Amino acid sequence: MPQQVVIIGGVALGPKAACRFKRLEPESNVIMLDRSPRISYGGCGIPYYVSGEVSDITGLQSTAFHMVRDPAFFRDVKDVDARNETEVTAIDRTAKTVTARHLPTGREEVIPYDKLVMATGSSPRRLPIAGLDLAGVHTVDSLEAAESIKASVAAGGVGSVAIIGSGFIGLEMAVAFADMWGLDVTVIELFDQILPGVTGPALSTMARKHMEEKGVAFRLSEQVARIEGQGKVERVVTDKGAIEADLVIVSVGVVPNSGLAKAAGIAVSERGGVIVDEYMRTSDPDIYAGGDCVEVKNLVTGQPMYLPLGSMANRQGRIIGDNLAGGSSTFAGVVGSWCVKLFELGAAGTGLTLAGAKRAGFDAVATHITAVDRAHFYPEHGLMSLELVAERGTRRVLGLQGVSVMGDALIGKINTVAAMLPYRPAVSDVSNVEVAYSPPFAAAMDILNTVANAADNILAGQNKGISVTEFAALWDDAASGIHIIDCRENPQGGPLEEKYPARWHNIPQGQLRQRVSEVPKDKPVVLMCNTGARSYEALVTLTDAGFTQVVSVEGGMAAVKAAGIDV
Amino acid sequence: MPQQVVIIGGVALGPKAACRFKRLEPESNVIMLDRSPRISYGGCGIPYYVSGEVSDITGLQSTAFHMVRDPAFFRDVKDVDARNETEVTAIDRTAKTVTARHLPTGREEVIPYDKLVMATGSSPRRLPIAGLDLAGVHTVDSLEAAESIKASVAAGGVGSVAIIGSGFIGLEMAVAFADMWGLDVTVIELFDQILPGVTGPALSTMARKHMEEKGVAFRLSEQVARIEGQGKVERVVTDKGAIEADLVIVSVGVVPNSGLAKAAGIAVSERGGVIVDEYMRTSDPDIYAGGDCVEVKNLVTGQPMYLPLGSMANRQGRIIGDNLAGGSSTFAGVVGSWCVKLFELGAAGTGLTLAGAKRAGFDAVATHITAVDRAHFYPEHGLMSLELVAERGTRRVLGLQGVSVMGDALIGKINTVAAMLPYRPAVSDVSNVEVAYSPPFAAAMDILNTVANAADNILAGQNKGISVTEFAALWDDAASGIHIIDCRENPQGGPLEEKYPARWHNIPQGQLRQRVSEVPKDKPVVLMCNTGARSYEALVTLTDAGFTQVVSVEGGMAAVKAAGIDV
Repeated sequence: MPQQVVIIGGVALGPKAACRFKRLEPESNVIMLDRSPRISYGGCGIPYYVSGEVSDITGLQSTAFHMVRDPAFFRDVKDVDARNETEVTAIDRTAKTVTARHLPTGREEVIPYDKLVMATGSSPRRLPIAGLDLAGVHTVDSLEAAESIKASVAAGGVGSVAIIGSGFIGLEMAVAFADMWGLDVTVIELFDQILPGVTGPALSTMARKHMEEKGVAFRLSEQVARIEGQGKVERVVTDKGAIEADLVIVSVGVVPNSGLAKAAGIAVSERGGVIVDEYMRTSDPDIYAGGDCVEVKNLVTGQPMYLPLGSMANRQGRIIGDNLAGGSSTFAGVVGSWCVKLFELGAAGTGLTLAGAKRAGFDAVATHITAVDRAHFYPEHGLMSLELVAERGTRRVLGLQGVSVMGDALIGKINTVAAMLPYRPAVSDVSNVEVAYSPPFAAAMDILNTVANAADNILAGQNKGISVTEFAALWDDAASGIHIIDCRENPQGGPLEEKYPARWHNIPQGQLRQRVSEVPKDKPVVLMCNTGARSYEALVTLTDAGFTQVVSVEGGMAAVKAAGIDV
Repeated sequence: MPQQVVIIGGVALGPKAACRFKRLEPESNVIMLDRSPRISYGGCGIPYYVSGEVSDITGLQSTAFHMVRDPAFFRDVKDVDARNETEVTAIDRTAKTVTARHLPTGREEVIPYDKLVMATGSSPRRLPIAGLDLAGVHTVDSLEAAESIKASVAAGGVGSVAIIGSGFIGLEMAVAFADMWGLDVTVIELFDQILPGVTGPALSTMARKHMEEKGVAFRLSEQVARIEGQGKVERVVTDKGAIEADLVIVSVGVVPNSGLAKAAGIAVSERGGVIVDEYMRTSDPDIYAGGDCVEVKNLVTGQPMYLPLGSMANRQGRIIGDNLAGGSSTFAGVVGSWCVKLFELGAAGTGLTLAGAKRAGFDAVATHITAVDRAHFYPEHGLMSLELVAERGTRRVLGLQGVSVMGDALIGKINTVAAMLPYRPAVSDVSNVEVAYSPPFAAAMDILNTVANAADNILAGQNKGISVTEFAALWDDAASGIHIIDCRENPQGGPLEEKYPARWHNIPQGQLRQRVSEVPKDKPVVLMCNTGARSYEALVTLTDAGFTQVVSVEGGMAAVKAAGIDV
C-alpha cells in the first residue's frame, strides 16, 4: 500500500533516502523539506569552491551529468516533492504529522506521515568567545557561507587569514587560501598537534611540516580568547598573543541538530546525537534518522560515537530507503575512516590512534614505518609513512593512519585495513593480507604487510622501536646521554659522525658483528638507518651480543626528515 | 639449540625465509643454494629493465639502499651462507642431507640439514611446437634471458616482436617493446580475450582497446602451430596465418619445479605443485616449501590452486622463517589478487571472475559499472570500470576486477575487497564498507559501495543489466530487434537518434514518466545513459509502468566507448 514519507533535511542523507525509497516504491509519496534555499549539495566541496578549483558553486549542487539538483529536478527526475526554504517546527508523533513553515511567506502547513526521516544534520560548534559576529568571521557550513567567503577574498581586501581549528575543514580551507589565493594563513590549534584525535604526533608533525613548507603558519597549544576589530575583524587574540587577520574561519567541529527530535520526545544521547538502532530507526519505530544528527556505534571500541561525514550519510541514506520500503537492511557501525589532501600530501586513517586506543582502555602500541611504496627499482615512487595501532595482549589491530605524497595509494592501504576492522583482525592477518602486486604499483612485500610485520616484531619484543618524535625529545635533551649508531653505509652515516663526534657513530650494518666492541655498553644506544629496516637488524645483532639498552628509530632518517627534525 | 637449515633456491622465498629465520635464531646456521649465477632478484622487474625504465640490471638485485644482494652481501649483512651456481641434485630424507653440485667445477658435496626449505620456483611452460630453439625466441624467466632480450633490441636489429600469450608478463613485455622501443608488437592469444582467466570479456576488451590505441596488435583465438626461420626466427605461424617477427617472446605461464621433491618422495599434486599444510610444511615435517613450487588453497573456492606470484613468495617466506624457529605461523590460503600496468591503464582483480565462479560451481552473476572515482565536481578525475562477481542465492561476494587510468585508486578498491574475501562477505558488506572519503580522492558514495549497490539491485531483480559486450552482440545483430531508449539529455542522446532513427530514441530520464507512451511494448527495450545510473532509474519507471522486456546497459556510453564499440 502506498505510503507517505516525510523527510526533514535535504542535503545528503535526505535525498539519498528519498530516491532509494522511491525506486523501491514508486507509488509511494515522498515529501522532503529543507530550510535552506539550496538542497542536495556536496558541502565537502566548499574548500574547492573557495580555492577556485570548482569555479561555479552550482557544481556542488549538480549531478555528474550537470543537472542542478533543485526542487524541479527532484520533481521531474526523482518524483520527489522537495520543498526548500521550508522549516519543520514541530513533530506530533501521536497524530503522525509535522508542522512546516515556508520561510519566505511564513505560511504553516501540517503534513501527515506514515514514516518520518530525520536528516537534520549538524551545526558548527560555537566557541564561548566575543567577536564571533564581527564582519569577516565565518564558519564553513553552507553554500551561502562559501559564497560570502569567496566573494570577500575575490574582492581583494583580504591579505591574511586566521583559521581556528586544525581539523579537516580548517586545514582544507588553509590550503585553499594559501595555495590558490596566495594569502598569509595562520592556523590556531588548542592541542599541541594538528589533526588532533585522528593522527598521532609523528604523522601529525609530518603533515604540519609539509604545510609549513607551503607557507602556512601554525600556532599550536594556543587557546583563542576573543576576536577583535572595529566593525570588521582585525585580529584573533589567544592566551599567547595576537594574530592579525582580515578574515577568520572558525572550524572547531560540529554538533548534531537534534533539538527537534528531543522536543518530540525521541531518544537523544547525552552528547546530543539522536539514538538509532542498527536499522537506523529512532526510539519511535516510525521515525528513522541518519547522517550528521545521529550517534553511531564504533565497531572497534563497541562504544557510541559521533562521526559526521558525508560519505556516512550516503551509506546510511540507502539503508533508510530500504527499510522505509519494508526492508531490513542494517548499518552495523563505523570504524572511523577519513582522508584529507594537504597540498601534495595525502593524510588518512581508520580505527583508533594510539592515544584514542589508550583512552578507550586498550593496552595499545603503535608501530611506525616510513618506506617507499613501490618496487624500489621502479623509477616513480614516493615515501609513505604508516602507523599501525594494535593491542598488546591480543595482538588485535585497532587502527592505521598514514601520510604520503602518493595519496591514492595511501588511501588504498587505509581502506584495506578499514575493511578488515569489523572482523577484529590480528596483526598477522594484516601481515598476510593479499594485496595486489606489480612493480609500478607496490613493493613485493607490500608496505601494509611490512608495517604489520614490524608491529609483530615490536609486540614479540624482537624489535624495540621509538618514534621520530620520541627520538627528537632524546636528541634535544643533552641529559639523555644517548649514543647513536648509524647503520647506513659511510657516504650517508659518515658526515653525521663528523658533525656530532661525541654522540653519532657510523657502523654500517654489515660490519656491526665485527665492530661490536665499538658500541658502548654503558649508554642508551639508539640505532638509526634510512627507514628502520637495517637498524632493526642491527638491534637483533646487538641483542644477540648481550646489549640491553638499545632501541631503533622507526622510519629512520626518512621519518626524521619528513618530520622536519633538525639533525 | 642451534640448527642447520638448508634452503634450495635463492630468488624470492629462499632469501626471505633465510633472513627471517636468522633474525629469530642468530646462532643457527643457514645455507642457501641456487643454481643460477645471480640470486635474490626481483624477476617481476624484468619488463622494466627491458623497457629501459630500470637502466641497470643490478637494480633488480639490489636492496632499497643500493647494495647488491650477492653471496658476499648475504654473508656480511645477513650471516647467511649463500652459494650461487650450486645445484641440489638429490635429497636424502633418511640421512637428512642434500647433495649439491658446484656447477662451474662439478664438485659435489653432501650437506646435512636439520630443517630443509624447498624454494625451487617454477619454469616457463613449454609449448609443444617446433622452432622454440631458434635464435631470437625467448622466455622471460631469468636475468640472463632479460639481458639477452634487451641486448638484441638495443643492437638495433629488431623491428617487430611477436608475443605468444597475453597474461601479465606477455602484456608487460608488449608495453616495454611498444612504448619504450617503438617496435611493432603483435600479441597472439589462444583464448578469445586478453588476460584470460583473470578478467571477464568487458574489462578485457577495454584493456585491449587501450593497448591497441597505443599501437599493439592482437591476434585472438589463434593457436600457434610453429615458429619458423633460418637459424634465427622469422615468423610465428598460427592456425590462421603467419606473423613476421624478428623476436619472439613465449609467455604462456609457468609450471612448478617439483621434480626434486617428487624424487625424494615428498607429496606432489597431480598438477605438479608441492603439497603443503597451513604451516607451509610438506609431507615431511622437517621440510618446508613455498613460493612458485607449491600449491595453495583458494579461500573463495576452498579448492587447491596454483598461484605463482613474487608477493606470495615473500609472505610465505616470512611464515617459513617463523616456523623454522619453532613458531606456529600459518598461511591460510589465497584469494588471487593481481594487478598490471598497461601503458596508462591499470588493471587489477581479486577472487573469481564470472567464468571462474561458474567453473567452480557457483550460480554467479557479474555486475559492471563505469563511473568517475572522485567527487564529480573535483577537477581531476578519471573513469574506473569495476566488475563485482557474486553468488546469486547467498549474495556472497566472489570477486572483483577492474580497469582504470587511476591505477593506484583502482588497486586500492581491489585490495579492500581482497581483504574482505577470506571473511566470506555478502554484497551488503561491500555496500557498507567504510572507505575514506574526501573530494580529491573519492566520491561521497564510493565507487566500491556503488558497485555493490548495483549488484544488490541486480540480485534483487530491481535492475536488469546487460554488459557492454552483450550490448555489442545485440547491436550488431539486426535480428535482435532491439529498440534503444537513450535516457541522457538531448545534446547527448539527440545526435544518435538522428543517426539511427529506426533503433535509437532519445527520451531524457526526467521526461520518461510523461513520455512513456513513446516506448514500444512489443520490442526488447535497451536503456542507455552515460554510466548506467539514469538508465537504471528509467528501468524502474518502465517496470512500474508494466514493461517487462527492458534491460539497462551497465556502464552506459562510458563503457561502450571504453570498450571501443562502434556506435
